[in-house]
Amino acid sequence: MLTGGIEAGGTKFVCAVGKGSGEIIDKVTFPTTTPDETLRRVRDYFSEFSIRAIGIGSFGPVDLDKKSTSYGTILHTPKQQWRQFDLLTAMKEYVQVPLFLDTDVNAAALGEYKYGVAQKDQSCLYITVGTGIGAGFVKDGVTYQGKSHPEMGHIMIQKHTDDYFAGICPSHGACLEGLASGPAIEKRYGKKAELLASHKEVWELEAFYLAQAIINYTLVLSPERVIIGGGVMKQHELYQRIRNYFSQLMNNYVELGNLEDFITAPTLSDEQGIKGAIALTYME
Amino acid sequence: MLTGGIEAGGTKFVCAVGKGSGEIIDKVTFPTTTPDETLRRVRDYFSEFSIRAIGIGSFGPVDLDKKSTSYGTILHTPKQQWRQFDLLTAMKEYVQVPLFLDTDVNAAALGEYKYGVAQKDQSCLYITVGTGIGAGFVKDGVTYQGKSHPEMGHIMIQKHTDDYFAGICPSHGACLEGLASGPAIEKRYGKKAELLASHKEVWELEAFYLAQAIINYTLVLSPERVIIGGGVMKQHELYQRIRNYFSQLMNNYVELGNLEDFITAPTLSDEQGIKGAIALTYME
Repeated sequence: MLTGGIEAGGTKFVCAVGKGSGEIIDKVTFPTTTPDETLRRVRDYFSEFSIRAIGIGSFGPVDLDKKSTSYGTILHTPKQQWRQFDLLTAMKEYVQVPLFLDTDVNAAALGEYKYGVAQKDQSCLYITVGTGIGAGFVKDGVTYQGKSHPEMGHIMIQKHTDDYFAGICPSHGACLEGLASGPAIEKRYGKKAELLASHKEVWELEAFYLAQAIINYTLVLSPERVIIGGGVMKQHELYQRIRNYFSQLMNNYVELGNLEDFITAPTLSDEQGIKGAIALTYME
Repeated sequence: MLTGGIEAGGTKFVCAVGKGSGEIIDKVTFPTTTPDETLRRVRDYFSEFSIRAIGIGSFGPVDLDKKSTSYGTILHTPKQQWRQFDLLTAMKEYVQVPLFLDTDVNAAALGEYKYGVAQKDQSCLYITVGTGIGAGFVKDGVTYQGKSHPEMGHIMIQKHTDDYFAGICPSHGACLEGLASGPAIEKRYGKKAELLASHKEVWELEAFYLAQAIINYTLVLSPERVIIGGGVMKQHELYQRIRNYFSQLMNNYVELGNLEDFITAPTLSDEQGIKGAIALTYME
């Protein structure tokens, strides 16, 4: 029987049906509008298929504490209409199959773990660097969840001594996301990141910050592999620059083998999130 | 039947026998000398008791990857005689009961989780701030382990703009341990930490660094409670200063409840490590 998956983003929703093998049979994408309109589109899409369950990789922050009274609710998002919206309860009214909810980044990590570059690993961290920065973690086939879900994009790192930019995180200023997200790059240089491709200093600084973040995640979680995706990483030279800073700053303190294997790009061509959403239904 | 525990430190070994309830029946402490002399003392101590197993919370780094050929071996420690010493294999020759090996900080976290301040929590992080800085993590009764064990003391953080100290970590210079361990305080101010009790600026800076570390650990692991122990924390005013910086820098980004409960001292009077070592034998 087929399985449904939803990559529920703040800008767009991706809905798909697929198999446990990771094969996608059908897929649609539509913009995220009001909760009601968006979920009606979700319902209409899935009504054409016979599916056993739906996995949802959601934008957040979202309450994932099953003991909480607000379990499944989107919390303090900048998207006003979705703030405090009880996604899971609403979804249950629209579709009549079991639902499996996790963060978008955990779903992406699970996608690469089950079907992508981390298939042979026991754990992997998936970092996305785009409008925001976030990361998901899978170990022994299970996505990581603490008291609430991690918010790894907001860690503190060492600012470069030549960087006088104050950072743009509304909560923390110069946290990782405040210094290194796509909008942070645009604000610092006054141009969109994709128009700065030839400016090496932009990507050196970006790599310096992302390498520190990966060092911190590695020292805390000790993952077998680190995968970096998201819009900013379309600047492919970043991967080697990040490895160079990682190597220099980590100084062989932890044995990690070949960094070309340890720090890699995703391999599922932007389908890690939706494939991972489907895989969430097989996790428990 | 009684259980043995060993807190295997670089300076001293603590051996004890106790019960699954956390009660310690007998305990000895002796200095860490050569591996051979130290393990003979361990053997002689336990030979007087009838025990079912021994749990070992070891200094490190130690190879905890059960698939590795060097599983149970102490790795690149500054203590020459213990470097590359196969602790687990040697122990098996000295005692004939099942052995359960983990890091000293994971044992301490497990001690507080089972018998101490985190008894009612589903997860806790235990940080020690002393000669070095390290942290252990327990979730759902199991100590955390990745590809290798975490090395949380070496994360990178934002240096204070008024701090011109280069840091003392031989590998990273100004990582957390390089800036905030006991020896770092001593080197920065030219006096032992305990002689600086009345110098508020010392503890303000220390709290600034430790608060950042706890923010990073919290954003990655999302623990229910953070416990800080170790020699430097004997300066008790640090707890409130850390909470103040944590609150200011985290800026309510994550819902954590009362910080007096979230960031606390250990409650097992320096026995969290040895009690946790005994508890390791009940974990699997």
